[in-house]
Amino acid sequence: MKTDFEIAHETKLEPIGTIASKVGIPEDALDPYGKHIAKIPYSLIDNERVKRSNLILVTAISPTKAGIGKTTVSVGLALGMHRIGKNAMLALREPSLGPCFGMKGGAAGGGYAQVLPMEKINLHFTGDFHAITSAHNMISALLDNYIYQHQQDGFGMREILWRRVLDVNDRNLRSIVTGLGSRTDGIVSESGFDITPASEIMAILCLATDEEDLHRRIENILLGITLEGKPFTVKDLGVAGAIVALLHDAIHPNFVQTIEHTPALIHGGPFANIAHGCNSIMATKMGLTFGDYCITEAGFGADLGAEKFFDIKCRKAGLSPKLTILVATAQALKMHGGIDVKEISKPNTEGIEKGFANMDKHIENLRKFGQTVVVCLNRFATDTDEELELVRKHCDKLGVGFTINTAFLDGGKGAENLARLVVDTIDKSPSAPLKMLYNDNDSIENKVETIAKTIYGAANVRLRPAAKKQLERIKELGYAHFPVCIAKTQYSFSEDATAYGVPTGFDITIRDFVINAGAEMIVAIAGTIMRMPGLPKSPQAERIEVVNGLIEGLS
Amino acid sequence: MKTDFEIAHETKLEPIGTIASKVGIPEDALDPYGKHIAKIPYSLIDNERVKRSNLILVTAISPTKAGIGKTTVSVGLALGMHRIGKNAMLALREPSLGPCFGMKGGAAGGGYAQVLPMEKINLHFTGDFHAITSAHNMISALLDNYIYQHQQDGFGMREILWRRVLDVNDRNLRSIVTGLGSRTDGIVSESGFDITPASEIMAILCLATDEEDLHRRIENILLGITLEGKPFTVKDLGVAGAIVALLHDAIHPNFVQTIEHTPALIHGGPFANIAHGCNSIMATKMGLTFGDYCITEAGFGADLGAEKFFDIKCRKAGLSPKLTILVATAQALKMHGGIDVKEISKPNTEGIEKGFANMDKHIENLRKFGQTVVVCLNRFATDTDEELELVRKHCDKLGVGFTINTAFLDGGKGAENLARLVVDTIDKSPSAPLKMLYNDNDSIENKVETIAKTIYGAANVRLRPAAKKQLERIKELGYAHFPVCIAKTQYSFSEDATAYGVPTGFDITIRDFVINAGAEMIVAIAGTIMRMPGLPKSPQAERIEVVNGLIEGLS
Repeated sequence: MKTDFEIAHETKLEPIGTIASKVGIPEDALDPYGKHIAKIPYSLIDNERVKRSNLILVTAISPTKAGIGKTTVSVGLALGMHRIGKNAMLALREPSLGPCFGMKGGAAGGGYAQVLPMEKINLHFTGDFHAITSAHNMISALLDNYIYQHQQDGFGMREILWRRVLDVNDRNLRSIVTGLGSRTDGIVSESGFDITPASEIMAILCLATDEEDLHRRIENILLGITLEGKPFTVKDLGVAGAIVALLHDAIHPNFVQTIEHTPALIHGGPFANIAHGCNSIMATKMGLTFGDYCITEAGFGADLGAEKFFDIKCRKAGLSPKLTILVATAQALKMHGGIDVKEISKPNTEGIEKGFANMDKHIENLRKFGQTVVVCLNRFATDTDEELELVRKHCDKLGVGFTINTAFLDGGKGAENLARLVVDTIDKSPSAPLKMLYNDNDSIENKVETIAKTIYGAANVRLRPAAKKQLERIKELGYAHFPVCIAKTQYSFSEDATAYGVPTGFDITIRDFVINAGAEMIVAIAGTIMRMPGLPKSPQAERIEVVNGLIEGLS
Repeated sequence: MKTDFEIAHETKLEPIGTIASKVGIPEDALDPYGKHIAKIPYSLIDNERVKRSNLILVTAISPTKAGIGKTTVSVGLALGMHRIGKNAMLALREPSLGPCFGMKGGAAGGGYAQVLPMEKINLHFTGDFHAITSAHNMISALLDNYIYQHQQDGFGMREILWRRVLDVNDRNLRSIVTGLGSRTDGIVSESGFDITPASEIMAILCLATDEEDLHRRIENILLGITLEGKPFTVKDLGVAGAIVALLHDAIHPNFVQTIEHTPALIHGGPFANIAHGCNSIMATKMGLTFGDYCITEAGFGADLGAEKFFDIKCRKAGLSPKLTILVATAQALKMHGGIDVKEISKPNTEGIEKGFANMDKHIENLRKFGQTVVVCLNRFATDTDEELELVRKHCDKLGVGFTINTAFLDGGKGAENLARLVVDTIDKSPSAPLKMLYNDNDSIENKVETIAKTIYGAANVRLRPAAKKQLERIKELGYAHFPVCIAKTQYSFSEDATAYGVPTGFDITIRDFVINAGAEMIVAIAGTIMRMPGLPKSPQAERIEVVNGLIEGLS
């Protein structure tokens, strides 16, 4: 099999204007970034068309460290849909540089199911992440400067709630002290860097409906509490306009093509473990404007990505998916069935059967939102027919649609069955209108408890003292009506990354609550989840090279 | 008078392909970034045409805090040249976001002498600075991770010489401690952030001749000294390929237009006070390839920018300017003549006359490099005819060409005289082949002393203990043949920012030497110059707004 890199570079891309014209996007409305990438102004979103189109969510069972290949299924489905004559748009998240150079490599699909140009998408793309990093750190600098410049006027902060961000995996930056040196080198403060996908600015960009809404949300960002006990926001700092200026281009969805020249939107990229995990509302709405179907994705397993997609993104945007695709792999099922991770590429029907529990729990969860679910098994070369038949039979028993995706090997041809199943299911038994898991008016504790018990299957929720203290503040400051975004490991329903399958009787411990007053959500930090990843002993960066003018090693 | 913003937005830009075609750049070679910006692949540089073309350097007397308007003169000259029928290309530096949001505002010229689109050039532009920031901090993360992951193998660093960078003015980040928190949050280290224009990666990008040269230089970057006393480089870290991949697009010069639709290259942006202060060699060579004249600029006063332009950039690139334009303003002359800065907008012929000493010293310095010099007075509305006549007479006496530039008010028309003077001077008395101030083989101490005494007029050079220690290392490691880049205040020949005019009898104190083994230069830190600026009490960010979809406040 050829590498992702080889496949990508054997593909002759069409000019991006040609791709746009095919789906009725006027070519002169595009803002090109090179010959194969463009931004589409969000003003082209048509809310009437959004309502008439069909939204499809792609999510997954709890993933292995190698991932489930959710993006490969999403891209494959888009290809398959076009092969059976349907106009489908993809809406995906932008990859983060950190994991590209760390453990994970790129995130633009794989094999014959890629979005292209993969090396641009995986690296700087249209600069959205850099704009977000700049905007975030500009606020940090302006805030520290405000404190420094106004200390003689008696101004001071009792608590600073705003950290810094960089799009890099750098464990050394998690916890830092700034302002050392001499008197003019600032004020000594505890600080730290999160990875850019965890930035509140990222969440705001993904949840904003237009530039005015972006401005309003930026103004509302809570930076800290003054010595007098008052909240201090970006509005108080007086720089919301400057921050919006930094995001003036980043706010528009990016447009690219798949390997089979079908249209794809890629915009925004919060992780689903430490943030809300979906591409921008604007990209999804753009996809629904220009596609009869829009295929979108929520990060990691359905416990994280799908729950946040429904309860945060769909709640804000008024979206309601017609169908949810739950992606599984034989290897992940075996892992959840108790097979050692080193052995999961070997045939093991017993492991598969024991692993169904994880899949079943995700299906049960998705149905709580009123979703019609189909299962798509993303086929690996090592899977046996016998194993796959087992999954098919199990899904039949559950009354859940099932199909196999081989788009990684076969491109769109390998996802035609999936496409037919999707179209057919949406025709015959689309999802009910979306049911939220909780109401805005529920307390934050109740929201966390509902998610933890209903979706994760936890026995209890425990709050650490810092979290309890924050809860008081959330109520006081009037943020209790926000939805909750739980930051938790992606590898398990629980907060123990090694508890595969369906753990029960466990507690969820909320270490802290982070107030995202601009994004209008409360991030609950469960367990030891890190908002700044580290690098492994042999990072992917050691295998990235520019050879004959082409970038290798990003797959 | 209209604001820069109003003038910029009244200008209807031509498609960037049209501008390219005019000067013979094939339109299909461009990589567009929006409709009015493109990258030109460096492979279009033609060294034969570079040799036949005429390079013009624009530099200045010691500036006021408001600046001298050097870029306004450079842009004006380009406009004037086209009006008198000459094919002139501009090659300028990219602005840094830090100062845009701090004190200085934008840096794309002003009035009717701007490069456009000014709000894109001043903000993210084509993402070059972001790519440099990413590349720099990726090395930092990979280095700290290498130490963390290999500590149990007995590996360790005696000294880490690599810091971090951000393109923001943030005094709190000058001196930090990282790696706090728990055992898995890295190793406690002293670190700090410089502003991106001070990054060695910025210098490397500006001095590299192609991607292979970039790779070689990145490999050579000295990151620190191991416990065993050995130098540890990016090559030892094994990630040069990944870093080059991050710079794969950034390496190509950016192409835009002036307000009168003439061609301009804007690429790379080291500051001249804390770095070497010139745009990329590739942009200058591209300008010389496609223009009969290429107008380029060196930052701040000639003591900093021009000296580094000659001794670092021209030395590496084999360039030799036909002419140097020394820009002065009546206000700056008055400041150097001892007039209080608050009073320099008022007429004062005596102040002007006393201030000539600063201009004369710069002219004397430029002539040491064999340069033919003309003086261009950048006219302000408050200047009187009497004041300007004084400067003209003084230049006549010196035998130096003189003219007035009013391009800020009048566009190219206001620089036609300047253009004629430039063409005429290059025809009749071009500069001699460039004479370097020192030889590669001189010791680092001698190089510093030569610059300090000959150019700055210092009495003595003193080395602090840290600097002396570094000198030993520089010799040991075989870097003594590199040119020297002195980091010093731009406001005075001395290291005292308030010593206007021509201070004498002062000492230059070198606090430290920074080894830029990849950029192949030694940065000497003079006095208290900061490689990370701070923000003022009322930063420009407070005045930046997006109004009706347009970004205001960047002028």
